[in-house]
Amino acid sequence: LSRLLDLIRSGRGRVIVAIDDPLITLSKFKELVMKTKDAVSGFKLGLPYILSYGLDNIKSVITDFRDTYYIADLKLADIDVVMSLTTKVVCRVGFNGVIAHGFVGLKGGLDGLKSVCDELGVDLYIVTSMSHLGSTEIYDLVIDKVLSVVEGLRPTGVIAPATRPEVIRRVRNYLGRTYLILSPGVGAQGATPGSAICAGADLEIVGRAITSSQDFVKASEEVIKSQLKYLEVSRCY
Amino acid sequence: LSRLLDLIRSGRGRVIVAIDDPLITLSKFKELVMKTKDAVSGFKLGLPYILSYGLDNIKSVITDFRDTYYIADLKLADIDVVMSLTTKVVCRVGFNGVIAHGFVGLKGGLDGLKSVCDELGVDLYIVTSMSHLGSTEIYDLVIDKVLSVVEGLRPTGVIAPATRPEVIRRVRNYLGRTYLILSPGVGAQGATPGSAICAGADLEIVGRAITSSQDFVKASEEVIKSQLKYLEVSRCY
Repeated sequence: LSRLLDLIRSGRGRVIVAIDDPLITLSKFKELVMKTKDAVSGFKLGLPYILSYGLDNIKSVITDFRDTYYIADLKLADIDVVMSLTTKVVCRVGFNGVIAHGFVGLKGGLDGLKSVCDELGVDLYIVTSMSHLGSTEIYDLVIDKVLSVVEGLRPTGVIAPATRPEVIRRVRNYLGRTYLILSPGVGAQGATPGSAICAGADLEIVGRAITSSQDFVKASEEVIKSQLKYLEVSRCY
Repeated sequence: LSRLLDLIRSGRGRVIVAIDDPLITLSKFKELVMKTKDAVSGFKLGLPYILSYGLDNIKSVITDFRDTYYIADLKLADIDVVMSLTTKVVCRVGFNGVIAHGFVGLKGGLDGLKSVCDELGVDLYIVTSMSHLGSTEIYDLVIDKVLSVVEGLRPTGVIAPATRPEVIRRVRNYLGRTYLILSPGVGAQGATPGSAICAGADLEIVGRAITSSQDFVKASEEVIKSQLKYLEVSRCY
C-alpha cells in the first residue's frame, strides 16, 4: 500500500503541492516543504524544476525532510528502457513516486516501467487525461483505452484533470475505488478547491496558488479550508 | 530553415546518435561527439542522460563542439506553461531542438510550446508514433489526429518509428515533403539501417549500436555504409 494513503488517513490535507517554476529558489522550496509538510500530503516536482536545480540539490531538500511524500513529475512517455533508466536515476535521490503517460501503452512501454517501479519500491501514477483544453483533441477521445491500460498495469494511482470534473467521474466510475486519483488544475488553471475531490478524486494538485504566495502556510491552509467548505455545501460523488 | 537540413545537405551521414544510458560517462560522450560529429548529422540526448549528469556538464560538452546539432529528447508531454519552462531551461545550455508528443494536442499545449521555440530559435519535433509495440495499443489508432495536430502546428519535423516502416510511409504520404522525419528504432530495437530512410524518413536515430561499441568511429561508419547499401539494393519510397 502506498505511503501516500497513510498520510491521507493520518489526516493530512488532501493537497499535493506542485513545484515547477525555477523562479522558486531552492531555499524557497526548502521553506515551503518545512512549513507545509504537516498540513499537506506531499510535493510534486516538475521537469523544469528538477532540470534547473539538478538532482543533487533536490536530494539535499528531500533528505532533510523525509516525513512527507515526493513525486517526480517527468510525465514519462518513452520506451521501457528509457523510462526505466530515468526512474532509476530519479528515485536514487529519494522520490516516492513517478508519473507516466497512459497513452504509451503496455508492451515494451509501461509494463517494463512498472517492473522497475516494483523493484525499487516506488509508486507509479498514470496520466489518463490532462488539464489543458488540448487534452480534448486526442487524449480524451481514447480515454477508455487508456483506462484499460491502467487496469492491465495496476499502478498506485492515476492523474485526471480538475478542469473537467466529468472526466474524473468517468475515471472513478470505470476504475472503482482501487486506485488513488490525483487531480491537477486547481487554482491558477481555474478549478475551485474541493471540486475535483467532489467529483471523485482523492487529492488535488495545487501549484501556483500556493507557490506564488508570500505566505506558504496561509495559502495552503486557505486551499484546505476551501476544499472542506466546497465539500460541505456540495452534493458530491 | 533548420540547421539540421544544412548539415544533411552538406553530406553528413543520415544518422542522429541517441545517448540515453548514464553508463556512457561524460568523457565517453565527449569522445563520441569529437570523433563522430563530422560523419553524423547530430546527437539526441535522452532524459535519463541529461538528468544523470545535469545541464552544466552537458553544456560543457556542447560548448566545446558547436559545429554539429543537439536535440534534447525529453519527450515533452505537459501543459504549455510546463513544457515552455522546460524548453527555456534546456535550451539555455545550447540545444538546437526539442521533442514533444503530438498526443498532447494544440490548445494550451503544443501551441504555447511552439511560440516559445520560435522565440528561442529552437527547432521543434513532434512524436507521431513510437518504436515499441505498445504504440499500436493507443498511439497508432489516432495517428491521423496526431498528424492533423502536426499540420496545425508546423514544427521542424516529426518522429516516426523505424520498427514499423508502414507508419513512416503513412506519415510521409500525409505530410508531404514539408517536414523532416526522424526515425528511432534502428539497431538494438531491430530495424535495419537504411530501412527507415527507404520508407520515407530523412534521418535514422541510432543509439546502442553506436554508443555501446568500443570504436565509435567504426560503428558509425558501419551504420552509414549499411544505410547506403540498403538504399542501393532496395526499391524505396
